[in-house]
Amino acid sequence: MEYPWDDLTLAFSRTSMFPFFDIAHYLVSVMALKQRPGAVAAAWNNPLSSWLSAMLHCFGGGILSCILLAESPLKFLTNHTNILLASSIWYIVFFCPRDLVSQGYSYQPIQFLAAGMKEVTRTWKIVGGVSDANSYYRNAWIVMIVVGWARGAGGAVITACEQLLKGDWKPEGDEWLKMSFPCKITLLGSIMFTFQHTRHLAISRHDLMFLYTIFLVTIKVTMMMTKDTAVTLTPFEDTLTRMLFGRRQQQQFSLSEKKTEVKPSSNGSASSASKRGAEPSGGAKRHAKKED
Amino acid sequence: MEYPWDDLTLAFSRTSMFPFFDIAHYLVSVMALKQRPGAVAAAWNNPLSSWLSAMLHCFGGGILSCILLAESPLKFLTNHTNILLASSIWYIVFFCPRDLVSQGYSYQPIQFLAAGMKEVTRTWKIVGGVSDANSYYRNAWIVMIVVGWARGAGGAVITACEQLLKGDWKPEGDEWLKMSFPCKITLLGSIMFTFQHTRHLAISRHDLMFLYTIFLVTIKVTMMMTKDTAVTLTPFEDTLTRMLFGRRQQQQFSLSEKKTEVKPSSNGSASSASKRGAEPSGGAKRHAKKED
Amino acid sequence: MEYPWDDLTLAFSRTSMFPFFDIAHYLVSVMALKQRPGAVAAAWNNPLSSWLSAMLHCFGGGILSCILLAESPLKFLTNHTNILLASSIWYIVFFCPRDLVSQGYSYQPIQFLAAGMKEVTRTWKIVGGVSDANSYYRNAWIVMIVVGWARGAGGAVITACEQLLKGDWKPEGDEWLKMSFPCKITLLGSIMFTFQHTRHLAISRHDLMFLYTIFLVTIKVTMMMTKDTAVTLTPFEDTLTRMLFGRRQQQQFSLSEKKTEVKPSSNGSASSASKRGAEPSGGAKRHAKKED
Repeated sequence: MEYPWDDLTLAFSRTSMFPFFDIAHYLVSVMALKQRPGAVAAAWNNPLSSWLSAMLHCFGGGILSCILLAESPLKFLTNHTNILLASSIWYIVFFCPRDLVSQGYSYQPIQFLAAGMKEVTRTWKIVGGVSDANSYYRNAWIVMIVVGWARGAGGAVITACEQLLKGDWKPEGDEWLKMSFPCKITLLGSIMFTFQHTRHLAISRHDLMFLYTIFLVTIKVTMMMTKDTAVTLTPFEDTLTRMLFGRRQQQQFSLSEKKTEVKPSSNGSASSASKRGAEPSGGAKRHAKKED
Repeated sequence: MEYPWDDLTLAFSRTSMFPFFDIAHYLVSVMALKQRPGAVAAAWNNPLSSWLSAMLHCFGGGILSCILLAESPLKFLTNHTNILLASSIWYIVFFCPRDLVSQGYSYQPIQFLAAGMKEVTRTWKIVGGVSDANSYYRNAWIVMIVVGWARGAGGAVITACEQLLKGDWKPEGDEWLKMSFPCKITLLGSIMFTFQHTRHLAISRHDLMFLYTIFLVTIKVTMMMTKDTAVTLTPFEDTLTRMLFGRRQQQQFSLSEKKTEVKPSSNGSASSASKRGAEPSGGAKRHAKKED
Repeated sequence: MEYPWDDLTLAFSRTSMFPFFDIAHYLVSVMALKQRPGAVAAAWNNPLSSWLSAMLHCFGGGILSCILLAESPLKFLTNHTNILLASSIWYIVFFCPRDLVSQGYSYQPIQFLAAGMKEVTRTWKIVGGVSDANSYYRNAWIVMIVVGWARGAGGAVITACEQLLKGDWKPEGDEWLKMSFPCKITLLGSIMFTFQHTRHLAISRHDLMFLYTIFLVTIKVTMMMTKDTAVTLTPFEDTLTRMLFGRRQQQQFSLSEKKTEVKPSSNGSASSASKRGAEPSGGAKRHAKKED
């Protein structure tokens, strides 16, 4: 009875990303770039800059994982076919007469299909990142998790740096406090694939790829349909936090009380900062590096 | 009849940059640093910081191309002779009694000579960058263009990052919207040398080096004499833009009209941003990374 | 008579940093992180972000030297034992019930002991950095100095970049004008170990390690006891400045006079900037890159 299942997952794990899934990924990435304020005008004024931004959106995760593994950040440019594909998509999205592509993309089912296919590429990227990291540093499982995570969800870090350099983004807002949902889910996947790779997880890789991809696509489509951006992981996180760091609310209250009473010496500044309720630019309240 | 020409260009292409052209390059770079507001006072207060800035000005392109090829950004420090030369020039420019060097440099023909000789080093750098990139990634012509470009004109990127870290430069102004002229001309040269390297351009390398250098020096001296900073490339660019992206003005008008009429849904924010005529901090209107 | 001394220094230079000195280093680094305003609240809100900051504080010098030698910035993650150790210390410092660790650390002699032991690790780091750089670029003594310096004192650079990305730190204040004292003393040590390595300093390495460590620890403990943060190097620096750049005050006065009289052409902006006495954000008056 198990053979058809194995056949299915094996065939799935051997699917080539190249033409169709990559196209979906580039399309979603470039449309995300286009929906930034001012992006269309900027593309007319300075096409080279816009093209560069589009490449960073499309290949950001790969660039970040190359930097983390001390490879050339230009390595993605050696894959001429993919560059050509991504450039063509950038070209038709931004300069198509009558903006046909955007109009087609505004049709909901196409968005769902493209977003779902993009999530499939995420699985492949995580697996690739974990394998690459293992070929550099054998059995360094923390490195494997980080590189898999970076390749799967690192695009946002690269584009945030790009916006920081352009001055479009100031690292101020509270929206950077927490990791975004795709980032968390990618981290989870990276951990699972790493443990599968080091044989701590008794499941074959193609099964895990299949199940994780189903999970990703389901969640993504659900989120897009319900317009809900923060699903499902909160109870899991709360449990983990409670296990690791004690019961949260009570601990925090007792902490602030204790601070007021016992020792205003060593971290008086910290306690005073945490007592001022709504300080807008509190010290380490933001976290820009590993978001999304 | 062709032999004397070949002899000339071959001899030219074998010229060593080392003592004289390098000196001119370091002199122009350090004088550019000195003419920044506050640079002289900073050199007296913190010589080490000023020396570091001077090294970044002198070797910025090399550092950037090393980073892009995943080599050590400190590689330039292994060339002790050039470091010593650049440091000596920094020393006499900033600390010479009675500021003799600056007074000598304010004499126009010396400026022309130094600027012309600096442009000669640019050709050598582009050729070196293209060759180096080819030795890392064989026939990856996009990488070759980028690395040649970075080594030829990347100094400004490095110094902009340095100023960003020092807080002297905020990535806000509209002056970063367009690439500077030397940057464009370097890009052009990098493309030509790459195509020469991949045998798509039927010209020998020493001929191309000779002609491109003549072109660079002529344009640079013309620009310095006429105080004109944006010569000659505008018609070429306009033609290219029109070929690639349609007729610009008309397209833009029809684009903004179309936006108002048809689809305020997908990029409504973009169109509203582009309609507000003189917004000072429009989204992607700036481009800090690859300028100059 | 020399044998006991040699035995002592040799034995000292073979001391393993691993359990105890590393613990002291991690403890001091994590306590420094905890004393930042808002750090405790941030650790409760986003433990992963806080853990990442703690790792950057603990391994910052190693990360910077890896980047400078074009190795993977994740290389420190391959040392699982040290990561586990640092993570445990981060965990008990931030989440220990009743904040016992902070209370224990507020006891003065423990602070002295930990700070002294941390300084011992600094010597080992400088020596390691110099050797590593030499194995990459043989006899490139400038690279050796820089890498030794970066590994010994580069943590502050990494944490400053982290704060810049988080938006907690703006590169504006005058406190970045000068290098901090530990940074200077590390530079001095890096120079000495490099010259010892290239046989220009006629002293054996274990002797130098012993003497330099004694020097470091003595100065650190003295500084902590007298609450004095800028000891001892000022006369040495003044002498060096006077030797290299002429007599400072006189030169500066004559410089500003000369500027007013002779040549307002070439660096008029610089002189006007230096004449305005108390400009708060003067151009190159700050130095963010190589501080501490």
